[in-house]
Amino acid sequence: MPALPRSGEFALIDRHFRRPPVSRNATVGIGDDCALLAPLPNEQLAISTDMLVAGRHFFEDVDPAALGHKALAVNLSDLAACGAQPLGATLAIALPAVDDAWLEAFASGLFALADAHACELVGGDTTRGPLTLSLTVFGSVPPGSAHLRSGASAGDDIYVSHAPLQGLGDARLALQLQQLARGETPSAAATLQALDTRLRHHLLHMTRVRLELPQPRVALGLALRGIASACADLSDGLTGDLGHILRASGLGASLKALDGAEGLLHACSPALRTLGNDFALDMALAGGDDYELVFTAPPARREAVAAAAARCGLCASRIGRMEPQPGLRWIDLEGRQQTLAAQAFDHFA
Amino acid sequence: MPALPRSGEFALIDRHFRRPPVSRNATVGIGDDCALLAPLPNEQLAISTDMLVAGRHFFEDVDPAALGHKALAVNLSDLAACGAQPLGATLAIALPAVDDAWLEAFASGLFALADAHACELVGGDTTRGPLTLSLTVFGSVPPGSAHLRSGASAGDDIYVSHAPLQGLGDARLALQLQQLARGETPSAAATLQALDTRLRHHLLHMTRVRLELPQPRVALGLALRGIASACADLSDGLTGDLGHILRASGLGASLKALDGAEGLLHACSPALRTLGNDFALDMALAGGDDYELVFTAPPARREAVAAAAARCGLCASRIGRMEPQPGLRWIDLEGRQQTLAAQAFDHFA
Repeated sequence: MPALPRSGEFALIDRHFRRPPVSRNATVGIGDDCALLAPLPNEQLAISTDMLVAGRHFFEDVDPAALGHKALAVNLSDLAACGAQPLGATLAIALPAVDDAWLEAFASGLFALADAHACELVGGDTTRGPLTLSLTVFGSVPPGSAHLRSGASAGDDIYVSHAPLQGLGDARLALQLQQLARGETPSAAATLQALDTRLRHHLLHMTRVRLELPQPRVALGLALRGIASACADLSDGLTGDLGHILRASGLGASLKALDGAEGLLHACSPALRTLGNDFALDMALAGGDDYELVFTAPPARREAVAAAAARCGLCASRIGRMEPQPGLRWIDLEGRQQTLAAQAFDHFA
Repeated sequence: MPALPRSGEFALIDRHFRRPPVSRNATVGIGDDCALLAPLPNEQLAISTDMLVAGRHFFEDVDPAALGHKALAVNLSDLAACGAQPLGATLAIALPAVDDAWLEAFASGLFALADAHACELVGGDTTRGPLTLSLTVFGSVPPGSAHLRSGASAGDDIYVSHAPLQGLGDARLALQLQQLARGETPSAAATLQALDTRLRHHLLHMTRVRLELPQPRVALGLALRGIASACADLSDGLTGDLGHILRASGLGASLKALDGAEGLLHACSPALRTLGNDFALDMALAGGDDYELVFTAPPARREAVAAAAARCGLCASRIGRMEPQPGLRWIDLEGRQQTLAAQAFDHFA
């Protein structure tokens, strides 16, 4: 019963972000000073926050529905890494100006993914400013069940998740192909410029969904409860994100390019491998924007890992092993050992 | 045991935002994919998020310690409005470049206020971009105890909180004095330019603490549990924020300038009143950045309201009454009735 006129900002929230509750997680949603969330009894709350800035994390002219999807996906990916069940999210958004068509598309992308994970938008803030998104997500996990980065043991296998025919490095390839099309010079410019236009279009077609519509591995994170010893999500590149596990667990690791059923090449897509196995492995190691899980588990749990992945329709490729000796070693396609610098993408480098 | 080199972004987080836990709210804090928070048994979680953009919510050259304080204060103010006990917060920050001295000061301001409210920084994100801050805060409240905007009844008294000698409109006056000093033309420019420089300096001295270091009324929000029927915090101006309560409760209200012990003039500081009572009331009605509570309670609870405020060292000035008739009416100093447009500050107006 709105007795008073509504101003633009609040009408904006109403128009695009207020919906009837889709689940029973939130008892009071958008519109009060706070949202009220009823945590699951005897469970812990997992919380993660991410900020996305136009021109840095996405192109200003990106499809807004895809942006709405991705903004939530990168946060749900953190819940997946913890093995938490999503409950809700808040969204803070700075916009240069009101653009109803843009907001409608953005909200449609965000809500489609939110609904798929029963994750309720419980609150938010809108303001004018350079296009910036900040989401905070909430999940639920029984005490002691969360995957931490610190739980790996020497001897544990190292896995990465991926969907069939998709893999690590795809998103980075798509980004570089898009940068090239914009006249920029990505790191692999020489290789990519040498391709004929039709192949470049084909590769972009096969990989851009990985860059623009990453699927957070929430179901896999849940399925790995009690199986994975440590887990992180791949956002800044495999070497860097695995490095978090190494540091937190006080261990080192060896990764293999290809050794029978083991090796990172198993986690590279056919599309990426058309550019050569060495190129594919480089892209997979230093990727970024993969939003897959990298996790460890004891060798005795190999069947359990495979079964958990299969229940989610995903592959869990075994790529190496945790070792007591610090550092990250790489066994290349010729069996030579190299040392990798386990650097994650650094926004301030 | 950091076995691997750390990159700049993570070192940045370590240097400025990672601390030993100060309370037992978070079982895993900054540094994993998610923070884990143990909610209080049988309580609900109150959640609020706010985004602050340089040049819009604060001057680029603001004192960073004050900015750290204010960024958290405006979020804690939302928890106060709900009557929630703060538990923790996440911080996402976009910075144009790394400036260690700035970050150290910012963190010091943020942590000083966080510690004062036992509110733990449990997670965050740092990225490069136009200076933007986004905080999400978490509080705890027993089911059914949260103050909502929708709980007011016709006949309820309307109150605003403030500290002795401070009041509504002070922050807006400070902002306008600062804008004037920068050569901008705030809405009250004519009045303020007519003042002699010494008085302008005195007024800024008396009021800028209200703009730069707002004190979230968390203790009052808790003390009003079971007493207030509805509550909101004052961030966008009294008429607008009270308007939220009117809309949510399906009611109207009358506010009085001054009528014995009742009236908004009681909530205006002596500093602001040196500019005249009419001017002071205009600033108090349309303020913004007050971060006080506006709340309602039945007349039978006047003593309980006064006692709750007194336990917090605060004043609760009674300024009007909820009425069944929609709309917001204003009884001015001469006893004439006017109708106010209950418009909150609109970032997109």
